[in-house]
Amino acid sequence: MSKEVSEEGQAHHHGKDYVDPPPAPLIDMAELKLWSFYRALIAEFIATLLFLYITVATVIGHKKQTGPCDGVGLLGIAWAFGGHINPAVTFGLFLARKVSLIRAIAYMVAQCLGAICGTGLVKAFMKHAYNSQGGGANTVALGYNKGTALGAEIIGTFVLVYTVFSATDPKRSARDSHVPVLAPLPIGFAVFMVHLATIPITGTGINPARSFGAAVIYNNDKAWDDHWIFWVGPFVGALAAAAYHQYILRAAAIKALGSFRSNPSN
Amino acid sequence: MSKEVSEEGQAHHHGKDYVDPPPAPLIDMAELKLWSFYRALIAEFIATLLFLYITVATVIGHKKQTGPCDGVGLLGIAWAFGGHINPAVTFGLFLARKVSLIRAIAYMVAQCLGAICGTGLVKAFMKHAYNSQGGGANTVALGYNKGTALGAEIIGTFVLVYTVFSATDPKRSARDSHVPVLAPLPIGFAVFMVHLATIPITGTGINPARSFGAAVIYNNDKAWDDHWIFWVGPFVGALAAAAYHQYILRAAAIKALGSFRSNPSN
Amino acid sequence: MSKEVSEEGQAHHHGKDYVDPPPAPLIDMAELKLWSFYRALIAEFIATLLFLYITVATVIGHKKQTGPCDGVGLLGIAWAFGGHINPAVTFGLFLARKVSLIRAIAYMVAQCLGAICGTGLVKAFMKHAYNSQGGGANTVALGYNKGTALGAEIIGTFVLVYTVFSATDPKRSARDSHVPVLAPLPIGFAVFMVHLATIPITGTGINPARSFGAAVIYNNDKAWDDHWIFWVGPFVGALAAAAYHQYILRAAAIKALGSFRSNPSN
Amino acid sequence: MSKEVSEEGQAHHHGKDYVDPPPAPLIDMAELKLWSFYRALIAEFIATLLFLYITVATVIGHKKQTGPCDGVGLLGIAWAFGGHINPAVTFGLFLARKVSLIRAIAYMVAQCLGAICGTGLVKAFMKHAYNSQGGGANTVALGYNKGTALGAEIIGTFVLVYTVFSATDPKRSARDSHVPVLAPLPIGFAVFMVHLATIPITGTGINPARSFGAAVIYNNDKAWDDHWIFWVGPFVGALAAAAYHQYILRAAAIKALGSFRSNPSN
Repeated sequence: MSKEVSEEGQAHHHGKDYVDPPPAPLIDMAELKLWSFYRALIAEFIATLLFLYITVATVIGHKKQTGPCDGVGLLGIAWAFGGHINPAVTFGLFLARKVSLIRAIAYMVAQCLGAICGTGLVKAFMKHAYNSQGGGANTVALGYNKGTALGAEIIGTFVLVYTVFSATDPKRSARDSHVPVLAPLPIGFAVFMVHLATIPITGTGINPARSFGAAVIYNNDKAWDDHWIFWVGPFVGALAAAAYHQYILRAAAIKALGSFRSNPSN
Repeated sequence: MSKEVSEEGQAHHHGKDYVDPPPAPLIDMAELKLWSFYRALIAEFIATLLFLYITVATVIGHKKQTGPCDGVGLLGIAWAFGGHINPAVTFGLFLARKVSLIRAIAYMVAQCLGAICGTGLVKAFMKHAYNSQGGGANTVALGYNKGTALGAEIIGTFVLVYTVFSATDPKRSARDSHVPVLAPLPIGFAVFMVHLATIPITGTGINPARSFGAAVIYNNDKAWDDHWIFWVGPFVGALAAAAYHQYILRAAAIKALGSFRSNPSN
Repeated sequence: MSKEVSEEGQAHHHGKDYVDPPPAPLIDMAELKLWSFYRALIAEFIATLLFLYITVATVIGHKKQTGPCDGVGLLGIAWAFGGHINPAVTFGLFLARKVSLIRAIAYMVAQCLGAICGTGLVKAFMKHAYNSQGGGANTVALGYNKGTALGAEIIGTFVLVYTVFSATDPKRSARDSHVPVLAPLPIGFAVFMVHLATIPITGTGINPARSFGAAVIYNNDKAWDDHWIFWVGPFVGALAAAAYHQYILRAAAIKALGSFRSNPSN
Repeated sequence: MSKEVSEEGQAHHHGKDYVDPPPAPLIDMAELKLWSFYRALIAEFIATLLFLYITVATVIGHKKQTGPCDGVGLLGIAWAFGGHINPAVTFGLFLARKVSLIRAIAYMVAQCLGAICGTGLVKAFMKHAYNSQGGGANTVALGYNKGTALGAEIIGTFVLVYTVFSATDPKRSARDSHVPVLAPLPIGFAVFMVHLATIPITGTGINPARSFGAAVIYNNDKAWDDHWIFWVGPFVGALAAAAYHQYILRAAAIKALGSFRSNPSN
């Protein structure tokens, strides 16, 4: 793959050269000895903790769902702290062979622990309001069936993970400069557009760590009964996004976008 | 033209050289044999499907029109998926000879199909709310006549298509880096400022595929009676934008903007 | 000045070289023979027309003032069309010797004509609502005296014009790439933060063309009585901003910002 | 430290070289003789004055808290005027040895004076509304104890100061171009996400100059009783952020972010 892409990249990026990094090994025991591995886990933990603290405190304290600009803010914070903060995103990056299996699993565990602590902090600070507001847990809303909820979670995570790929991956030539600064913008907007569409159906999961942390702290039967939807949906959506990105986008999006600016047939 | 512009470009861009691509051929049968042609159609279909799914689900589920930040979010998603998602934009790019006639028509067909499927998905997920909320279809509002509606659609699409040209075309020197990342920002804001001005009059079309998809699924007499406005208006607006861009902007905007920073007379 | 600045620039921009353009001549009759001069006037006219059309239609149709994101949208459109759209900004750029006197006056005339036409278009499209909503004209609000109104206009325009200088001027090294793409962001946000602070007092002018266009079309005694405030305030504010930029910022801001990142004393 | 970082930087930035500036001296008497030192103080004063003027006038005039987009607007203005506008940020930059002790203290004094004048201006312009709206002062809200308030202030300032470090510091290779233009985006969004989470508890301080200016002008017993929380909380948060940045982020965030795009183990 690396060869094909680097050739295409040269054709479309006017001779700017880059090489795809080699795919991450499936299992890499050597990682376990690196201090950087544990620093990354701390970053995942802290970023997810703060993400949940701010999200849930906002929902509890203002009785309102967050808007699209807030999404950019949250992703901006997550980016600043260097975390994926979402097992579905980590799963997508694992499928694309960007992280090893060991690292993917360790990230997900750190994300779930961070989510539990972040939600717990909100409960400690705002006990009364927390319980009366439903604790920010995701459930299938009245009047929708589980199939619809699963479909909405799959589509929502598909959009999110695909946008992550698209905002971070193909812009290799821009890698050293501003992509990390700007990536939270499209990703954040995507996340919260999906929220607008999905909130009436499931309260919007598309992040299993978020759903898990809220379910653990709120600990409500209905939340646990529906909980599988918020793991299966996002993981299926991430799988679809990784496949779509690999087989349709890698070449097509660059070309289609090119037609915004120039003749795509040359 | 290519010669004149490249000379002016050198004068204003401090010697950075670029060449205008040759105009796309009117009819290019060879495109039909390219896999990339079909990948681009898939991208148009999926991007427009998601665009309609999110827009209509948001309107139906929250009983509110989307705001300007949402617009950036939607365009960011459309960009990530590599689609024009709007026949008026495709028509404008065809007029500017950026896409061939065959490709333009195929894109429009893919956009209309994607719009139908996206709206259909919302109806399948939220049947009751969908019908009671008017299905997101565009019609001339009570108290306005068809001439005003057509005028509002023409001005609105003029602003949109012109912003697309301006955000993607003349910044050639920045082409390989961040323009694709940033283009959704001005375009998205433009789209939704136009919405604010045009919603009271027509509900804001400025995208024939969007109007068509909603009309097909909602299938209401009033929506079909007014439907021509949402094709004629956007196409006339796109024609005006392409002409204005070609004869007024290409040189003027670069110079006028220059006066934000430096003496425009040199 | 040009010499001092270019030396300082080299010191602070790590050797990246640029030269200040020579100041614009006060009166340059040769401009009147350039086609580019008239194209720039057309761009000012169209950009201000669209600016007023969208602003006033939004206020009339939704009975709401626009928010900060909308501001970015409007400035993004203005930028796309290559216009200053504000006599106070043009006056500030004239004081900084970026445009000649002839060009400054011609721009202001084009802006005022565009503002009249844009507001007229809204009145033609939405006659009833237009008159009942006050026509978007600026007046001193009940409970505030004219001194306070003038003060608020001066501070507001000071912030706007200073932000224009700061977003477009000192980033010379970034000139060819993304500053034009990004400039509407800080400027747009500044404009509308100022709106939030100033709306209760004057409805927020800080743009004499906007105030003039609305006053001409609405043609109300109170609007004309207070009208001088919306020319004197913005021009005094622009003068203050040009002076502050010249004597405090040019060196200081670059250094102070530097301390966000590095030791400012070296 | 400078040596270690510059080696790591080379490894991660693909050979782009930069050198860390030497840490600022603790006490540097020579600064007191520089005109640039006083220009920076004027910039701090003016930026904080405008920041308070706009924030408090908005809260007073619209009876609403500002939203996340407004935050970007305010930070954009602060950036344009070249000010830190927040003693907690200045303290964090002092801890990171970016500014000397003398400069840090002088900045804080200028910020507090600017905050008093900005709030005073609002009181002068809108006397009635100012007193009836609580004057924008920060207090512990009914139903929360001081420990919770202190905790919320610490977490909030931790997020803010860390985001400042992250948005301005490690992107050295991008230093000369667009980081100053873009930095207000993530910082502004972070500030106001924190506001959303913290407003119900303390009204959100995370800026001692803001809290001090409002307390001086409003001069209310309750505001003074709780006032220590709005100095101790932010300074502890800034200390935590500086420590976290130094020991966890410097390497980890760059690597973890890398895994958005590439194999982090190489």
